[in-house]
Amino acid sequence: MDILKERIKEDAKVLDGQVVKVDSFLNHQVDIDLLNEMGKEFKERFKDEKIDKILTAEVSGIAIACIVAQYFKVPMVFARKTESKNLDSDKYESEVYSYTKGRTYKVMVSKRYLKKDKNILIIDDFLANGKAVESLIDIVNKGQANLIGVGVAIEKGFQAGGKTLRKNGIKLESLTIIDSIENGQVRFR
Amino acid sequence: MDILKERIKEDAKVLDGQVVKVDSFLNHQVDIDLLNEMGKEFKERFKDEKIDKILTAEVSGIAIACIVAQYFKVPMVFARKTESKNLDSDKYESEVYSYTKGRTYKVMVSKRYLKKDKNILIIDDFLANGKAVESLIDIVNKGQANLIGVGVAIEKGFQAGGKTLRKNGIKLESLTIIDSIENGQVRFR
Repeated sequence: MDILKERIKEDAKVLDGQVVKVDSFLNHQVDIDLLNEMGKEFKERFKDEKIDKILTAEVSGIAIACIVAQYFKVPMVFARKTESKNLDSDKYESEVYSYTKGRTYKVMVSKRYLKKDKNILIIDDFLANGKAVESLIDIVNKGQANLIGVGVAIEKGFQAGGKTLRKNGIKLESLTIIDSIENGQVRFR
Repeated sequence: MDILKERIKEDAKVLDGQVVKVDSFLNHQVDIDLLNEMGKEFKERFKDEKIDKILTAEVSGIAIACIVAQYFKVPMVFARKTESKNLDSDKYESEVYSYTKGRTYKVMVSKRYLKKDKNILIIDDFLANGKAVESLIDIVNKGQANLIGVGVAIEKGFQAGGKTLRKNGIKLESLTIIDSIENGQVRFR
């Protein structure tokens, strides 16, 4: 997706050699026009599929999933990471190991919002080692729902997540794939 | 806003006498069509104001702020609650005491996304005691930006937040105000 690549080239910052910081348009400040373009693109890429619900995880998946859901005219559900009075006790859970944070956390979805045989599209901002997306897939499977595919804005092609999903036969649509980062410069596939 | 009141009557659950659980359409599963109606309504209520940016706080403000921002054709910024590589060290901070959680947490906005004299509209899902919104106002003030007003989906009129904001001359627009909860029944103003 060219406008996203351009935006990454212009605005993203590379930290610690591996972290691509896109806080100016994706996960702190949010460029709603750009997200709408992403929404149209995901709709085009999944146009032959029946989608009943968009699934993502808090925090940084919410904005993109919200805008994308408009193009599929379906509700969006975001998996919660913390227990809350607003979360049913009757829920699907999965554990995620975060390399960035060096610890395991849970993602949770109320059973009321993930029903058997419903067609689910997972949307997230980043795909790196894939652990977060795998936990959402685990939740879809626990609910006996039907995973249609996974759409991410930015895939880090030099980490294992995308390869693993494709190897497992999952329809993965990445709007951009970063193949390498060298001397602070991002190279796209 | 009648469709929101209807939805609360139909779908919300009252917990512990005081908590209004709206996880079926606002803060776990998200009804994007309903959020779009809210966006139109906020635009109407602030139609005479110049707005440069929408400000909210993670987690549950993001979805509504994202959709609302579309109607103002401006970017949205969500205050972060946890330190992250994706957050600049040069930031505005404020502390919030959470009655629900019984502890204090920080909200943080990068200085790059809150500039002097810019016109800010704060959007959030709930207004109860008002501590979360007050911390966002504190951040707006620290950045010497210009607070245009505050828009919330659901104000708990029996808690102090709304009264305090209005007393301080802040333009507060609540799409619904719950005046009391008795025997699990919500009564609107």
